[in-house]
Amino acid sequence: MIGRLNHVAIAVPDLEAASAQYREALMAKVSDPVDEPDHGVSVVFVELDNTKIELLQPMGEDSPIAKFLEKNPNGGIHHVCYEVDDIQAASRHLQAQGARILGDGEPKIGAHKKPVLFLHPKDFNGTLVELEQA
Amino acid sequence: MIGRLNHVAIAVPDLEAASAQYREALMAKVSDPVDEPDHGVSVVFVELDNTKIELLQPMGEDSPIAKFLEKNPNGGIHHVCYEVDDIQAASRHLQAQGARILGDGEPKIGAHKKPVLFLHPKDFNGTLVELEQA
Repeated sequence: MIGRLNHVAIAVPDLEAASAQYREALMAKVSDPVDEPDHGVSVVFVELDNTKIELLQPMGEDSPIAKFLEKNPNGGIHHVCYEVDDIQAASRHLQAQGARILGDGEPKIGAHKKPVLFLHPKDFNGTLVELEQA
Repeated sequence: MIGRLNHVAIAVPDLEAASAQYREALMAKVSDPVDEPDHGVSVVFVELDNTKIELLQPMGEDSPIAKFLEKNPNGGIHHVCYEVDDIQAASRHLQAQGARILGDGEPKIGAHKKPVLFLHPKDFNGTLVELEQA
């Protein structure tokens, strides 16, 4: 079912500083920041040869990563995103296996304009897993 | 400098249960467990289309992930590993940029039998970053 690792998301308290670290210390290809107000984050994409890292800074008051940064003020790895071919089939299979999908259980349109869902971290080794229909 | 994402390492309290989740719920290709006593872990490799996930369970009393699991009993994402062409050049560049290398600052031979180093999480957004000479 899961295919590629689409991205690893890292929550950061200071997007400009984090971008500079990846650009200058790790000498990676780093995008300009992109505001995604509908998803409550500003994002910088670090393009690696086989996948990407998304550096996320909270945007607005209801940002989904605000609580994470309260608990982890230096930042930290927030989630991994795996690609699937068919998000509805993935959702049915996972629920049949007893995995819990966050929210109302229905896939939503994610920040990449593609259908996504998030799995409960307690069902996956304390790891927040996003699935995205590729 | 950094090229491919070599792997994402996830510390887990129960390697057998974690393997079953990835095999059955996420329908991924999952290896048998491999004991790495010199590195204090048992590892299962989850082969994705473009990279891999390493599920790590502590092995022995001095396991480098034992403390992490004390703080995160359900498990959690432990580190990301980026590939570099020349670990000595990477080390010199990073130290010139003010980044701290864990231990004595010298690359060591890692679990894949290749030279690796770890960067201080406080310098990289609360993220433990491993660099591996590809």
